[in-house]
Amino acid sequence: MATPAEGSLRRFSLAVDAMGGDSAPEVVLDGLDLAAERHPQAQFLLVGDEARLTPLLARRPRAAKACAIRHAPDVISGDMKPTLALRQGRNSSMRIAIDAVAHGEAAGVVSAGNTGALMALAKIVVKTMPEIGRPALAAIAPSARGDVVMLDLGANVQCDARNLVEFAVMGDAFARAVLGLPAPSIGLLNVGSEELKGDDRVRQAADVLRDSHSGINFHGFVEGHDIAAGTVDVVVTDGFTGNVALKTGEGALKLMRDLLRQVFTSSVPARMGYLLARPALERLREWMDPRRYNGAILLGLNGVVVKSHGGTDALGFAHAVDVAMDMVTHGFTQNIRESLSRLATHAPTLAASQD
Amino acid sequence: MATPAEGSLRRFSLAVDAMGGDSAPEVVLDGLDLAAERHPQAQFLLVGDEARLTPLLARRPRAAKACAIRHAPDVISGDMKPTLALRQGRNSSMRIAIDAVAHGEAAGVVSAGNTGALMALAKIVVKTMPEIGRPALAAIAPSARGDVVMLDLGANVQCDARNLVEFAVMGDAFARAVLGLPAPSIGLLNVGSEELKGDDRVRQAADVLRDSHSGINFHGFVEGHDIAAGTVDVVVTDGFTGNVALKTGEGALKLMRDLLRQVFTSSVPARMGYLLARPALERLREWMDPRRYNGAILLGLNGVVVKSHGGTDALGFAHAVDVAMDMVTHGFTQNIRESLSRLATHAPTLAASQD
Repeated sequence: MATPAEGSLRRFSLAVDAMGGDSAPEVVLDGLDLAAERHPQAQFLLVGDEARLTPLLARRPRAAKACAIRHAPDVISGDMKPTLALRQGRNSSMRIAIDAVAHGEAAGVVSAGNTGALMALAKIVVKTMPEIGRPALAAIAPSARGDVVMLDLGANVQCDARNLVEFAVMGDAFARAVLGLPAPSIGLLNVGSEELKGDDRVRQAADVLRDSHSGINFHGFVEGHDIAAGTVDVVVTDGFTGNVALKTGEGALKLMRDLLRQVFTSSVPARMGYLLARPALERLREWMDPRRYNGAILLGLNGVVVKSHGGTDALGFAHAVDVAMDMVTHGFTQNIRESLSRLATHAPTLAASQD
Repeated sequence: MATPAEGSLRRFSLAVDAMGGDSAPEVVLDGLDLAAERHPQAQFLLVGDEARLTPLLARRPRAAKACAIRHAPDVISGDMKPTLALRQGRNSSMRIAIDAVAHGEAAGVVSAGNTGALMALAKIVVKTMPEIGRPALAAIAPSARGDVVMLDLGANVQCDARNLVEFAVMGDAFARAVLGLPAPSIGLLNVGSEELKGDDRVRQAADVLRDSHSGINFHGFVEGHDIAAGTVDVVVTDGFTGNVALKTGEGALKLMRDLLRQVFTSSVPARMGYLLARPALERLREWMDPRRYNGAILLGLNGVVVKSHGGTDALGFAHAVDVAMDMVTHGFTQNIRESLSRLATHAPTLAASQD
């Protein structure tokens, strides 16, 4: 097995950190086995402990056909500080996978390992696109009208108008690549939908996005309840608000699930009621299955970087790989470049206001 | 009937805008009829169209005993701009009710009318407490572990550390008065629970609140999912994030309710299942009944100001009156004064950092 054809550039669709996550490497390999079936053209660079990976891969023929192993002696633990991961993680599976993107061997990287370390290493090693001020963290969430992209989810606790405009451009490119929408509608999160609401930041960003030359299908301001309602395809906000909003929504849904479980176990008739309604309730459960929404995506780097949830299973990991593959195959990075150069022509004032 | 004993100061517990809300004045009077039963000592100054109110009140004996009517010829409509309400609303029921608080005739005001107008009029007429930099909007929400107070919900889109500390003090006093908690736990909303997370604002505010002299039972940072989990009794944040978080949580719960309705009408067995589980589902519905959580409270003024939802029914309006009565009878304003003077002694640096 070893590491065939390592020297050739962009040989791999994705580099995969085989050792990151609660049940690595088994769950990672099972996930790749599923992903390899969905993406028959994909080639994965599997980075991790070669002695452990070789026999595991041999038992998964589909994954084995799509993967080449690259040995990494170390693993970045889940609780390692990003600064320590930077200094001491040079031989870790996560770092070597990220290096492969920086060296142009792979178009992107997927890891279920330490989030903070992945974000820090990716930013420093893969680097931010020269056209982008700050990268943003995005995710996909369920809504009443289909999937919704949200960003930023915490990469930047403070943002100016320029950052918000760039997030809109990146969210647009992401929704086109991953949700397959030709002209996704973009909403800017605010405390009201009227043009005069909010602070200078959001009003200034809205002015730029409203310009018909922006190439953005800008819906205008949206409010918190519009996220679950699916009013727009992409919800743009700063990292502080986005992080709080995503976790608040998840918390509310979890509370509802817990309460429903109590309801359906509270009496014998309620249990029978559950059994009768079960097929329909199962569809609801599938619809909001967190595995379908697994994957936080760091947008704005010179390569695709996807973080899988550390506790997910093979299906969840395969979904994270799906997102990364969609970005790689649908020219996500090129789309951003084109949109930004169009904006730079039509909104030069905003570029001047950057910090 | 008319307006007995109008001259005497603080004769009324609350002034009530009889004409505000979708189904005013009937719903307001029905709500006061319920509230009068719950608060037998309460005296309400009922402000509105005397010719309409007199016969309606005569048919509600409990409300009639607790209410004195003050005539107001005008009504501020639901879509009137706050600036216009200020200039042209001098003879409106809302304004005359607010005036009664400013003149010391009533300890607080409740209105189901135009939110923006109520906030603007109250701030200008009742005025901010001298000890407080900026008033904040608070509400009570359900959680897995009882009621949670959230503030600010949109009165201030930008806040500094001093504002956040004051919100914590006001939230503490509010939770003691309305939830009856002797030492409510206070959490500061952030993107992570570690001390180093977030921006300068939240870290600086946390440093002050962590001081044992603050008199605040400070839990530390909380995240979005902690709101529904009920990790703390009071969640403090800036008005932008708070507004988005509250509406995001409400949106997620509404989505879940809509989907459950679809589930239980999707097939004959599912309908039967609903019928069997109905008593338990009804308890869930009651638990999250928005009428129980009716009332947005503007904290930090020289009097109690409660906004009832415009579309609520008598029960919902009575709940808003409950909240205002609890604040009036449990010395909410005095509690704030004491906490702030304690803070001023122990955190003089923060007071110096104010804008």
